[in-house]
Amino acid sequence: MGRWEPNARLRLVRAAIDLYGEQGYDTTTVAQIAERAGLTKATFFRHFPDKREVLFAGQQEHSALLAEGVAGAPADASPIEMVAGGLTVLAASFTPEQHAFGHLLGVAVAGSAELRERDASKTAGLVAAVTDALVARGVPDATARVAGELGVLAFKQAFARWSDDERGDADSLARHATSALDELRTAAASLG
Amino acid sequence: MGRWEPNARLRLVRAAIDLYGEQGYDTTTVAQIAERAGLTKATFFRHFPDKREVLFAGQQEHSALLAEGVAGAPADASPIEMVAGGLTVLAASFTPEQHAFGHLLGVAVAGSAELRERDASKTAGLVAAVTDALVARGVPDATARVAGELGVLAFKQAFARWSDDERGDADSLARHATSALDELRTAAASLG
Repeated sequence: MGRWEPNARLRLVRAAIDLYGEQGYDTTTVAQIAERAGLTKATFFRHFPDKREVLFAGQQEHSALLAEGVAGAPADASPIEMVAGGLTVLAASFTPEQHAFGHLLGVAVAGSAELRERDASKTAGLVAAVTDALVARGVPDATARVAGELGVLAFKQAFARWSDDERGDADSLARHATSALDELRTAAASLG
Repeated sequence: MGRWEPNARLRLVRAAIDLYGEQGYDTTTVAQIAERAGLTKATFFRHFPDKREVLFAGQQEHSALLAEGVAGAPADASPIEMVAGGLTVLAASFTPEQHAFGHLLGVAVAGSAELRERDASKTAGLVAAVTDALVARGVPDATARVAGELGVLAFKQAFARWSDDERGDADSLARHATSALDELRTAAASLG
């Protein structure tokens, strides 16, 4: 984390995603990831507990940003508008680097049962964060939970669309998130 | 699976749940589970690949039952009515034994990060099964996905309520599922 390892964290994430895509997650070792990043195993373990968490280390920060956006929505916002506020704050944190490896990340997760499982767990964590933030604003439990589910689903769909979109700026991700959320809200109203 | 091991599968599940509750999931071994069930480790491994899957072996069957119920709903059913059909068929498969250890199962899963993660993965699998079954009936993708999410969430809530309910029959579980789904549908309509 010293100045002699600039961007070590990002370099490790990028190396891991590349290797998972090239040779598969199961056969990739921490040593290989560190070598590809031009760093040592010790440096890897200063940043991540294992090769799986490389791809999910942002969960805590993402939860906090979603909650911050919900908390900061206007006083008269509807639950879905609060969720939109959360998605907007989260989207603003994304960088062109994340856009650049978004597609490979999706391929890596889809190709490994272990990563899909961890991804499901991250999703559940994010849903809980949004739900709790909505409840803290007085939204009833059931409404908060449904809104949390739709919000996180919208963000996942938006990230996939953004990865396929040539516009890699955070504003573009935010627009995808808003439109995905609107589609899901419309779908929810058509359930019968 | 021979006649000399009556109910081996159920005995192993029960032993595992008991031990996870008593001493924690992490410290429990397959040997301890087998011993508690009065069976051998070899018998354990004929039924389950590892100590984690003991609690989730029903995922494939549950997915199939949900899909069957969706497929069997009346031709003029709304998406949410199709989901209700899936929950009813799934609920009908539950036994008084599952009611009896439902509470301990919840405690065991809540107490282990590894089990919570596997539980999130099972949830995602069930949502995909319901979504696919709805799409096969012509429900638009976004509507199917939202209905799938709400359906599986409703069943999870229903199972938790059933575990706390003294009525341990399958009809009781089905009633909890129907009312939980109705609550979530109402919540979805109130999102703004």
